[in-house]
Amino acid sequence: MTAQRIDGAAIAAEIKAEVAARVAALRAGGKTPGLAAVLVGDDPASISYVTSKARACEELGIFSETFHLAATTTQDEVLGLIGQLNTDERFDAVLPQLPMPPQIDEQLVIDSLDPRKDVDGLHPVNLGKLLRGQLDGAIPCTPNGVMELLARTGNDPAGKHVVVVGRSTLVGRPLAVLLSNKAKGANATVTICHTGTRELGRHTREADIVVMAAGHPRTLTADMVREGAVVIDVGTNRIEDATRERGWRLVGDADYRAVREVASWITPVPGGVGPMTIAMLLVNTVRAAERAAAGGAFPA
Amino acid sequence: MTAQRIDGAAIAAEIKAEVAARVAALRAGGKTPGLAAVLVGDDPASISYVTSKARACEELGIFSETFHLAATTTQDEVLGLIGQLNTDERFDAVLPQLPMPPQIDEQLVIDSLDPRKDVDGLHPVNLGKLLRGQLDGAIPCTPNGVMELLARTGNDPAGKHVVVVGRSTLVGRPLAVLLSNKAKGANATVTICHTGTRELGRHTREADIVVMAAGHPRTLTADMVREGAVVIDVGTNRIEDATRERGWRLVGDADYRAVREVASWITPVPGGVGPMTIAMLLVNTVRAAERAAAGGAFPA
Repeated sequence: MTAQRIDGAAIAAEIKAEVAARVAALRAGGKTPGLAAVLVGDDPASISYVTSKARACEELGIFSETFHLAATTTQDEVLGLIGQLNTDERFDAVLPQLPMPPQIDEQLVIDSLDPRKDVDGLHPVNLGKLLRGQLDGAIPCTPNGVMELLARTGNDPAGKHVVVVGRSTLVGRPLAVLLSNKAKGANATVTICHTGTRELGRHTREADIVVMAAGHPRTLTADMVREGAVVIDVGTNRIEDATRERGWRLVGDADYRAVREVASWITPVPGGVGPMTIAMLLVNTVRAAERAAAGGAFPA
Repeated sequence: MTAQRIDGAAIAAEIKAEVAARVAALRAGGKTPGLAAVLVGDDPASISYVTSKARACEELGIFSETFHLAATTTQDEVLGLIGQLNTDERFDAVLPQLPMPPQIDEQLVIDSLDPRKDVDGLHPVNLGKLLRGQLDGAIPCTPNGVMELLARTGNDPAGKHVVVVGRSTLVGRPLAVLLSNKAKGANATVTICHTGTRELGRHTREADIVVMAAGHPRTLTADMVREGAVVIDVGTNRIEDATRERGWRLVGDADYRAVREVASWITPVPGGVGPMTIAMLLVNTVRAAERAAAGGAFPA
């Protein structure tokens, strides 16, 4: 069989429409959600991401402002700005765009955020709540996007065996925790694989659902996938492609053309997980605004 | 074959001797490590645990004091005491003994601890650091004890497949994270199983190392274990035993007598993981004191 294609762009649009309705309700009550992006330097990819996020906010009625600092900005200046944004009531959410230039300690920047405004869910308080199974904080956007893709295509992971390939703090680790939670839309048996895993295929072949977050093209080949498995591909790798004017194209971690002949569902790259990340950032922003509107209570 | 018995008491004694040397070094420099235990009510098991911990501190040269409050103590009184202990320089570590009476919100108590003094490693900041792969905070005692048992019996989990059965915040979840870290003594492929897992035996039979933290006797039977696997049993369950004067005995989650005929190494219950938990509490206490002596810096 050929797998059904999971249309991340369509699902992201669905979620954005839901966020827009929540934003409208907040604005009707006199509260406009606000997102501050902190961009240091002139990395073209970072500028492009921040621009997309700002545009998405505008479309949905979220106030957003980008604080664009020079590449030579010092650590203390960045921390000073974060400190100001933490107490600036216009902003419910603060997004330090990563990567930052080498003189900036990114972890220190994240740790200096008010956890209530940490829209990426990477502050230790938010990651710690996640590990405790408390889902009322900000949940990292890409893992949360994967959960939504599964839920909204009817692929409930409950009771299934999910193999997550990759152990990054941004994706693999929080996703494994989310999937194994005793919660609706979760409750999966989860295996986490990584560069230290022997015989990766032995594990992926056992999986009902495989999530690739390894960051290497063709890590998952068709022989590593069980007939009828669901494949979610978080990878976004540039590979050379002389047929394209720009000389490259994006591919995931799975060998898409071959794997889709074995899988039951598969995300394309681009157009699968990618669009979900921004959608979940908007969800986290509106949730932070809803909490602030409810009096700023932050259940610890 | 019959498995080698992992002697948790002997390994815990080894670790305590190492802690005693570190305590002596601190005291030679004018710093006496201190642990405050907060005990609310008169639960006999809790009193017995706190007494054991205090005795272990005394043996090792750690100053300890138990704050024993009445069972009727209010939430605010407990939080008030924690607030005082957070700023009391005699104490590097504060241990709220759980469970607490029903009028006390345990999570709020844990969250009110200064993360630097959270000796159980259950504050969200410490759990979050763990999920980020930062091992410089307090690591929950029982999972850390399991890591030490593996390391000190030569059962390095690197490249092995470890199946953890149980997803509690106290044991299963942090242990799965610890084992999958890219770090010395870790780097395992980890599967986390739980009450929502279908065909548990299908997973445990694949494992090089099985860690049982399910909390139910005989969850792991011999047919669920691969020949030569290592079995670590965190379970401590009371079962009726008319041959004992007290009418019960402690058993683990594994069917010990049968499983030890299949496994290569196995922890007994009691005498396996149990003694390690207190040993790792002492390790966390001395680490907190070392950090305080170094100027209280707490790498975020």
